[in-house]
Amino acid sequence: MTPYRLHYAPDNASLCVRLALLRAGAPFETALVDRRSRQQDSAAYRALNPNGLIPALETPDGPLFETGAILLWIADRHGAALAPGLDDDDRGRFLGWLFWLANTLHPALRIIFYPERHVAGDTGPLVARTRERIIAMLDLLEAEAPRLRPWLGAEGSSLLDCYLCPQLRWLALYPQGDTAWFDLTRWPTLHAVAEKMDTRPETAEAQRAEGLGPTPFSAPVLPNPPEGSPL
Amino acid sequence: MTPYRLHYAPDNASLCVRLALLRAGAPFETALVDRRSRQQDSAAYRALNPNGLIPALETPDGPLFETGAILLWIADRHGAALAPGLDDDDRGRFLGWLFWLANTLHPALRIIFYPERHVAGDTGPLVARTRERIIAMLDLLEAEAPRLRPWLGAEGSSLLDCYLCPQLRWLALYPQGDTAWFDLTRWPTLHAVAEKMDTRPETAEAQRAEGLGPTPFSAPVLPNPPEGSPL
Repeated sequence: MTPYRLHYAPDNASLCVRLALLRAGAPFETALVDRRSRQQDSAAYRALNPNGLIPALETPDGPLFETGAILLWIADRHGAALAPGLDDDDRGRFLGWLFWLANTLHPALRIIFYPERHVAGDTGPLVARTRERIIAMLDLLEAEAPRLRPWLGAEGSSLLDCYLCPQLRWLALYPQGDTAWFDLTRWPTLHAVAEKMDTRPETAEAQRAEGLGPTPFSAPVLPNPPEGSPL
Repeated sequence: MTPYRLHYAPDNASLCVRLALLRAGAPFETALVDRRSRQQDSAAYRALNPNGLIPALETPDGPLFETGAILLWIADRHGAALAPGLDDDDRGRFLGWLFWLANTLHPALRIIFYPERHVAGDTGPLVARTRERIIAMLDLLEAEAPRLRPWLGAEGSSLLDCYLCPQLRWLALYPQGDTAWFDLTRWPTLHAVAEKMDTRPETAEAQRAEGLGPTPFSAPVLPNPPEGSPL
């Protein structure tokens, strides 16, 4: 089959899609989006994703965008290992948490990474409150995690692992120099999920491709990518 | 089949799910969540949705939550009329916009409806900037809308109609008394989508059930529900 083409930047949300493609064994090539020149704002890139956000995935069905949507599409097209199948009993509950990662946790991360896009003037109060909200979100997920097996930290990674673990990584790294508030060991189950993800073969390949460094999800360091930049 | 049980409050996100259930012809009964007594925070409700948000949908597969997830699950279980099927060429692009409604537009609405949950102190700058972001989002959707047929404003409603039109309604109504900034006619295509939705049979039934009043999506008035309260 024609390989997919993943438009990515190192350590961006494209990492979630890369992990899922590797786990699915789906053939793909990559195209760097140069964030330093704001290539994601170019007309050419916006033809792929009108939102100007990374990632986009070119497929025989056209270009796809929104991390959660791409992940679900990959899972459904490439077999059930990444997600319950359409008729499985746990499909609906799994979708609930996939959407939650996309519409609750991820937007909160975007606020603390890009607070100046969300409020004019002093961003301090917004960031402070959003950190509290993120802690409450992870408290909730920690409490729910036992019910999310076999889809979180199980033998083979699922979409939930592919979407959650990079977010745990980013919380530990960004914005650079202002992450002391975040300590993943506060959530032992989520920490164990990240440690499990660290050891997986798709993670090893992603580490090489994006220069993610050792223990990229449970105890990450800033990336040293072979091309491009995360910001 | 056993009817589903939709836990709802009038004019809440449960409205999107109600419209989809009616459109799918799926049997369901409703259970009011009394927002005045904050029933959504009760232990009994949090057993259905640990996030304490409305809606939750009880199904033979257990309780489901997250509006976008419930919508997609209904579409996939009840035939393709609400969404492209798994193998359809436009499935991936459709999913992209479904996630966008859930993780981009909807969280921005939550900020202007509940700004005090998102920032301590003066909420004015956050609300002002979020209004600008919402306008930019709707500008984008207006530009994309022609490419989203047959899934937006077409003959039969899709998940995108069921999720978008209530959000357009809420922008015109909430927070009560502070909506003069919003004028749907600025976006002629989206306005036409809302006008189309106003005329549908599932809308007529939702109007009766939740007291939505005339032209509930294109030119709404505050609801006068037979039970419960929107806030």
